[in-house]
Amino acid sequence: MQPSVGERRSQSFDRVLSSMCTEPHPAARAAAEAFLASNPGDPATYDAVAELEAEAVDLLGELAGLAEPHGYVTSGGTEANVQAVHAARNLAESDDPNVVAPESAHFSFTKAAELLGVELRTVPTDGDHRADVDAVAAAVDADTALVVGVAGSTEYGRVDPIPALADLASDAGSRLHVDAAWGGFHLPFSGHDWGFDDAAVDSLTVDPHKVGRAVVPAGGLLARDARTLDALAVETPYLETPTQASLTGTRSGAGVAAAAAALEELWPDGYRAEYERAIDLTEWLAVELGGRGYPVVGPELPLVAVDLPDALFEAVRGEGWKLAGTGTGEARIVVMPHVDRGTLESFLDALDRLAGTVGV
Amino acid sequence: MQPSVGERRSQSFDRVLSSMCTEPHPAARAAAEAFLASNPGDPATYDAVAELEAEAVDLLGELAGLAEPHGYVTSGGTEANVQAVHAARNLAESDDPNVVAPESAHFSFTKAAELLGVELRTVPTDGDHRADVDAVAAAVDADTALVVGVAGSTEYGRVDPIPALADLASDAGSRLHVDAAWGGFHLPFSGHDWGFDDAAVDSLTVDPHKVGRAVVPAGGLLARDARTLDALAVETPYLETPTQASLTGTRSGAGVAAAAAALEELWPDGYRAEYERAIDLTEWLAVELGGRGYPVVGPELPLVAVDLPDALFEAVRGEGWKLAGTGTGEARIVVMPHVDRGTLESFLDALDRLAGTVGV
Repeated sequence: MQPSVGERRSQSFDRVLSSMCTEPHPAARAAAEAFLASNPGDPATYDAVAELEAEAVDLLGELAGLAEPHGYVTSGGTEANVQAVHAARNLAESDDPNVVAPESAHFSFTKAAELLGVELRTVPTDGDHRADVDAVAAAVDADTALVVGVAGSTEYGRVDPIPALADLASDAGSRLHVDAAWGGFHLPFSGHDWGFDDAAVDSLTVDPHKVGRAVVPAGGLLARDARTLDALAVETPYLETPTQASLTGTRSGAGVAAAAAALEELWPDGYRAEYERAIDLTEWLAVELGGRGYPVVGPELPLVAVDLPDALFEAVRGEGWKLAGTGTGEARIVVMPHVDRGTLESFLDALDRLAGTVGV
Repeated sequence: MQPSVGERRSQSFDRVLSSMCTEPHPAARAAAEAFLASNPGDPATYDAVAELEAEAVDLLGELAGLAEPHGYVTSGGTEANVQAVHAARNLAESDDPNVVAPESAHFSFTKAAELLGVELRTVPTDGDHRADVDAVAAAVDADTALVVGVAGSTEYGRVDPIPALADLASDAGSRLHVDAAWGGFHLPFSGHDWGFDDAAVDSLTVDPHKVGRAVVPAGGLLARDARTLDALAVETPYLETPTQASLTGTRSGAGVAAAAAALEELWPDGYRAEYERAIDLTEWLAVELGGRGYPVVGPELPLVAVDLPDALFEAVRGEGWKLAGTGTGEARIVVMPHVDRGTLESFLDALDRLAGTVGV
């Protein structure tokens, strides 16, 4: 017989190297517990959480270089990316709008295109897994409603040349969306040009439930101007507020409160400290892996991709290490706040031991 | 200066008569707290919560009369309804599919139609706010991909004639979706024909975070056959599982765990007791309101709509009562688990006192 739900426990993060979610900050967890029964999708009824959402959006704007942000706390990067495509489609003058994105863009853009009935033009990246500006330029035409730039790619942690993509989009009369779902909490400290104050960015995804250390689910959609959200709004009879711009209806009050709490606690110094810790650790890991002869796609942000022999990849997964692959089969190691030097030493020990066993 | 997030509290449910969410069951709250850092959208990494989701879907199937349900825990009724329209669009043979729904259908169908680029044909209800089968039949044609029936409408708590709508859909080669987001946890006990074992229903929305007493967000989409979810699936590189059928990517582990816990705790006896308590209380309230001369749309499920003079409606809201209106301006009172006799006596006292003040 199954144990009752109350006896079940969530997985530990001890061996999780695959996820872009992490152990929430204690303040975020406490705020989430206080707001488990509230719905930011009904802000007139649930006014306390609506106020926290406004504060979270303001702080996310500060992080992304935008003084008066428009936006909301989404269920995650997928919803934020879908809504960026949705707004672009609705604002497009073309009857047959297309979206141009590098092949490094998250699969949520595929989901968005299928859902929204827009053409997705996926273009190759350059030799180092960043958007190739010439390739993007070649794909853009008069029907392009949106160009996507990735600031911290899911597979390799790469940051696209956002200002060049923004110039290109601007020349073509297209909007520019930056997907910084994972990277956004590192990028204010890494020296990249990525945000609203670095380029003509129209909308941006940045997720508090990833490096921001909120609880799941708490993503973020930000926009430079009000018309982005206006383009998404539907009327809401029988709520006390007139319109709703979110993809979902009911939303997580826990996620919103946790996002506000984590940002209050950690922005900017806590996030700066985490960036510095994580990037140093990732660079060390890349050297360790490379020194063992495994081909490494070196870190730009705290993420390493490493080409392990298939048998070894399977063997470490068999020992409970949560490890996911890139499209071409490298193992991705995401150095999240729950991943410390001890975790990575155990992982390297497991690799070394298993490499002998599987005979690679 | 604002108090810190940690000092903020969620609204109390004491005067909330507008919401279809409620105070979660203690077991649901505990399960949510244990799974705040898990993501059912990544089931290979977060396997414990994936197991709970399968259990929750099985119990929801039992509740809705389906032995081997396909489905998942959504962010709420909006996502479930959007995905029902999405599946119908993708499975339709027509290039120009339409959806036929009664005017009592939730605004999420408007959202779905806009998002998905399908035509929504909204048809009048009968004199008692239920779908008019003849009007639906007149709107259905060869391009109809989906007929929507509502089992517990948001405005009046009405249950459409689901078997008649199902026959009609079946004859037209269309799918039938039942929106029982709110009603679904009452309907197994109310004697209505509404579920998979009562009619040829293809998909159904039923939300654990409403009368099910899970935490927010936990909705439910159920489908009779596997192809409904197959029609929604997109490939998921860099996750350890191959496809994903949800609208969002990351999802709430707290919501999923809470749904499983609440269903384990309350299905069926706890929900039956709540239905009996709530319907008796609602019938009493309807008599009390009617006795005061306010026109009442009497209860079919635990929800009353009452036509209050505008000045009185505003005056009670001014005292902190959360009360939302129907499209034609009646106040809706949803008798949720947090609403007891004492709540309603206080509300009636406030009405009586304020009626004198505002001079109605």
